[in-house]
Amino acid sequence: MVHAVNSGHPGGSLGCTEFLVTLYQNIMERKEGFDMDGIGEDIFFLSNGHISPVFYSVLARSGYFPVSELATFRLLNSRLQGHPTTHEGLPGVRMASGSLGQGLSVALGAAQAKKLNGDNHLIYTLHGDGELQEGQNWEAIMYASAKKVDNLIATVDVNGKQIDGTTDEVLAMGSIRAKFEAFDWDVLEIKEGNNIDAIIAGLTDAKSRTGKGKPVCILLYTEMGNGVDFMMHTHAWHGKAPNNDQLETISFMPIAYSLLRTAKNKMKKYTNTGSKDTRSGFGAGMTELGQKNEKVVALCADLIGSLKFDDFKKNHPERFFQIGIAEANMIGIAAGLTIGGKIPFTGTFANFSTGRVYDQIRQSVAYSDKNVKICASHAGLTLGEDGATHQILEDIGLMKMLPGMTVINTCDYNQTKAATLALADHHGPAYLRFGRPVVPNFMPADEPFVIGKAILLNEGTDVTIVATG
Amino acid sequence: MVHAVNSGHPGGSLGCTEFLVTLYQNIMERKEGFDMDGIGEDIFFLSNGHISPVFYSVLARSGYFPVSELATFRLLNSRLQGHPTTHEGLPGVRMASGSLGQGLSVALGAAQAKKLNGDNHLIYTLHGDGELQEGQNWEAIMYASAKKVDNLIATVDVNGKQIDGTTDEVLAMGSIRAKFEAFDWDVLEIKEGNNIDAIIAGLTDAKSRTGKGKPVCILLYTEMGNGVDFMMHTHAWHGKAPNNDQLETISFMPIAYSLLRTAKNKMKKYTNTGSKDTRSGFGAGMTELGQKNEKVVALCADLIGSLKFDDFKKNHPERFFQIGIAEANMIGIAAGLTIGGKIPFTGTFANFSTGRVYDQIRQSVAYSDKNVKICASHAGLTLGEDGATHQILEDIGLMKMLPGMTVINTCDYNQTKAATLALADHHGPAYLRFGRPVVPNFMPADEPFVIGKAILLNEGTDVTIVATG
Repeated sequence: MVHAVNSGHPGGSLGCTEFLVTLYQNIMERKEGFDMDGIGEDIFFLSNGHISPVFYSVLARSGYFPVSELATFRLLNSRLQGHPTTHEGLPGVRMASGSLGQGLSVALGAAQAKKLNGDNHLIYTLHGDGELQEGQNWEAIMYASAKKVDNLIATVDVNGKQIDGTTDEVLAMGSIRAKFEAFDWDVLEIKEGNNIDAIIAGLTDAKSRTGKGKPVCILLYTEMGNGVDFMMHTHAWHGKAPNNDQLETISFMPIAYSLLRTAKNKMKKYTNTGSKDTRSGFGAGMTELGQKNEKVVALCADLIGSLKFDDFKKNHPERFFQIGIAEANMIGIAAGLTIGGKIPFTGTFANFSTGRVYDQIRQSVAYSDKNVKICASHAGLTLGEDGATHQILEDIGLMKMLPGMTVINTCDYNQTKAATLALADHHGPAYLRFGRPVVPNFMPADEPFVIGKAILLNEGTDVTIVATG
Repeated sequence: MVHAVNSGHPGGSLGCTEFLVTLYQNIMERKEGFDMDGIGEDIFFLSNGHISPVFYSVLARSGYFPVSELATFRLLNSRLQGHPTTHEGLPGVRMASGSLGQGLSVALGAAQAKKLNGDNHLIYTLHGDGELQEGQNWEAIMYASAKKVDNLIATVDVNGKQIDGTTDEVLAMGSIRAKFEAFDWDVLEIKEGNNIDAIIAGLTDAKSRTGKGKPVCILLYTEMGNGVDFMMHTHAWHGKAPNNDQLETISFMPIAYSLLRTAKNKMKKYTNTGSKDTRSGFGAGMTELGQKNEKVVALCADLIGSLKFDDFKKNHPERFFQIGIAEANMIGIAAGLTIGGKIPFTGTFANFSTGRVYDQIRQSVAYSDKNVKICASHAGLTLGEDGATHQILEDIGLMKMLPGMTVINTCDYNQTKAATLALADHHGPAYLRFGRPVVPNFMPADEPFVIGKAILLNEGTDVTIVATG
C-alpha cells in the first residue's frame, strides 16, 4: 500500500495527496517535535481515517517519524495500523479514526480547548463527502455555528465517490454547499483540488476567514481520476489489492491462526470441501431467500460488496435498500419495515452493526420486539490488519445483553448459509456474525441450522470443549 | 400526570394536544381495532416519546384501549410506561420511543413498507424541535429526500424550548425551514399550532403535497404558553411534579426497594447522616473541582438540572459546554478538549452516556487513550417509572468491555462526591454512574475515594457478600 503510494501508482489516498502535502508543508504552523496537546501550533485531524497511507506518508516526510517506518504499514505490532490509532504512540496522530463521522466533534473540542488556552492557532480537519451521511457530522456542524467555533477549517473531499458507487447512486446528497450554508457556516470552494496553487490560494483564503464568528468549510473538488479515495478502503475491506498489499496482508494471517492450528492437530479430522469465506455463505443465503421469500428485504450501509449483497440487489432491486453511511438510520428503517410485515436483514461490519447503533437496536428493535436480522461481516480478530477501530471483539457481549436477541456465530460457509435461511423462519430480533477470511468449509451442505442447538463434533472423555463460531 | 392533562391543567403535552386530537379524529384514515402492520390505514409515530400523556390520552379516546387504563400511567406493571414501549402490547403503539432522534428512521421504514405493499396510505410523525439536534434525524432527513419517500408527513413541534432552556440558549438551531429545504424537503408551516382550524388546513395542505417525489415537513408553531412540551420531560427527570404525580411516583418506590430493605435488617447498622441523591454528590464534587482545578471542564447534553451542573455552570461559564441533545458530538468534543490539556467531565443519563455513544467512546476515548470522565445519572432500575427505554441495566457491562476504562459505581452522596474529586486526579478514561433517588448517606464525609479499593463494611464468618454501588 505504502509502496503503491510512494511510487505514484493510483491509490485510494491520491485524491488528497496535494491537499495534505500543501497543508503540512505550506500552511500549518507546526512546532518541532510532537506533543499531544499541540499548544502553540496548528493541529490537523483526519476524520476519514481510511486514507491513512497518505496521512502517514505526509507525517513521515514532515519529520514526525522515520520514513522507513512506512514499510511497517498494516503489519502486526506496527504503529501504523490500517486506520490510525494513538495507543502505539505514533507521533503526529492525536486521535483514532476509522469509524466514520467522529472527527469533526473531536476537532470542535480541540478548537475550544485552544480558545480556553488563549492559543490563536487553528484546527484543520479532512472529511470524505460520503462521510457526511453520518448523522454525528450534523450534530457537530450545528454545534460549530451555534457556538461560533471560528478557529476551525473543515475540508470536505468532494470526489463524488464512496464504496458502493457514486454518492448520487448510493445516497444523493444534493448541494453540500447549501447544507453547510443552511447550518450557518462560511463556505468556500477549491475547484481544482489536485492543483497545489489552487489549494494554497483556497487555504489562504480560508485562514483569512477565521476569527469572524463562523466556522469555515472548504469544499475540495478532487479529480475523478485521482479521486478514488475509497480504493484503499475498498482494498482493505474487499480484498482487491495490488500484489504488494496482498503480500503484506498474507504475512499477518499465519500468526493469527497459529493457535487454531495447534488445537486442530489433536482433533478428529473433518473433510474440507473447499475453503470459503463465511460472508459468502451469508450472501448465498440471501440470494436463496430472495427467491423463496417475498417478505425478505435487505438493507446495507455502503458495503454491498463486503456483505455479498450483489446478487440480492441485482435480482430484487425493489427489495434492496441502500442507506448510505448512516447505520443508525439503517436500524430504524429496518424496524419500520417490519411494520408492514417485511423481514429486514441489515448488513454492515460488526462494529458498525452493534457498538455504533447499540441504543437504536435497544429501543427500536429489542424493546420494540421487531423482527430485524442484524447481519455483520468482519467480526472478531480476523480483521486484524485494518486496526483496532475496525476489529470489534465485544459485539457478542453487546448483543447478548439485549432482551429477546438471538445471537448466532457460525463456523463456516455452509453453516452461515444455513443460519441465514433459518433466520427468515425465526421470528424476533437476531444478530448473525461472520467474517471475511477464507476458512475451511466442513459442515455438510444439506445440514439445516437449528437455532439454539449445539452440534457434537468430537466425542471423548478427557476434556469438554464448548466452542462457538 | 394523566389527571393533569384530563382536567385541562397546563402540562408538558398540552402544546401538541390540538395537533394529535386533530390528526387522529379528523385527518388519519384508521381501521377498526389495531394490528401491528397497519396495512390499509395511516400510521402515526411519536418520536418525542416523552409527551406520552397526550399520546396515550388520544389513543384511549380514539378507541384503542379503555380510558380507565390511563390511570395506570407510570405505575409498575402498567402498559403505559413513562415512555411508550410495545412489550406490554398497548394497542396503538407500534414502536418504543423515549431515546430521542430515532422516530423518523422508523417512519421511513414503515413508509417504504407501504410502498412495497402497494398501500397508498400515509405515515405521520411528530418530533420536538430540540430533538433535531440528534444527528440521526439528519441521516433520515437526507435519506428521505434522496430516496423520494413522498408518503411521509413529518411534523416538528416548534416551541423553541427544551429541558435546559430555549433552543437558542441551549444550541441555536438557526432556520429549521432553511435546513429542511437544503435537504430537499417540501416544507410548510402551521403558524397557529394550537388552533384546530389552522391544523386541519395545514394537514390537509400537507396531504395534498404527498406523492410528488418529496417528503413533506410541517413546522408546527405551538403557543409558548401551551408549548411547554418538555414539562412532562422536566417532571420525569427533575422530580418537579404536581401532587398527583408525586403520589404515583412514590407508589413505585417501596416495591423497588423491598429486597434491599430485607437484606439491611440482617446487617450491621450505619448512621444515616441525612438521605440525599447521589447525583447531588456528583454536583457537589463538580462545584469543588471547578474551584480547585482550572483544567476541569464540564459538558452537558441538555440536562443541566438533572446532572446538578447548575453551580459549575454559574461559577465557570467559560468552562461549561452546553452541547444540546447530541450525545455523540458531546463525547467527541470531550475527547478533543483533552488535546490542550483539559479534563472533561461529560454528563447525561446512563443510557445516553453509554449505549447511545458506545462507538464514539470506543474510538475517540478508549482507543485514543483520552482523559475523559463520562458521568451518568439515572443509572439502573431506580428510573423505573420512566420506562424501559430510560432504564439501562447494562451500562456497567458496556463500559467494562472497553480497554483502559475505569468504572465507578458509588453507594451514597458522600462517596459520589469523593469519587468525583478522585477522578480529576486519575489519568485515563473513566465512567462514573449515580442516580436520582434519595438514598441513605452513611459514608464519612471526609473519607477519600481510592479508585479500585474495596471497603470492608461488615466482618463475619458465615457468608461473603461483595457489592457495588
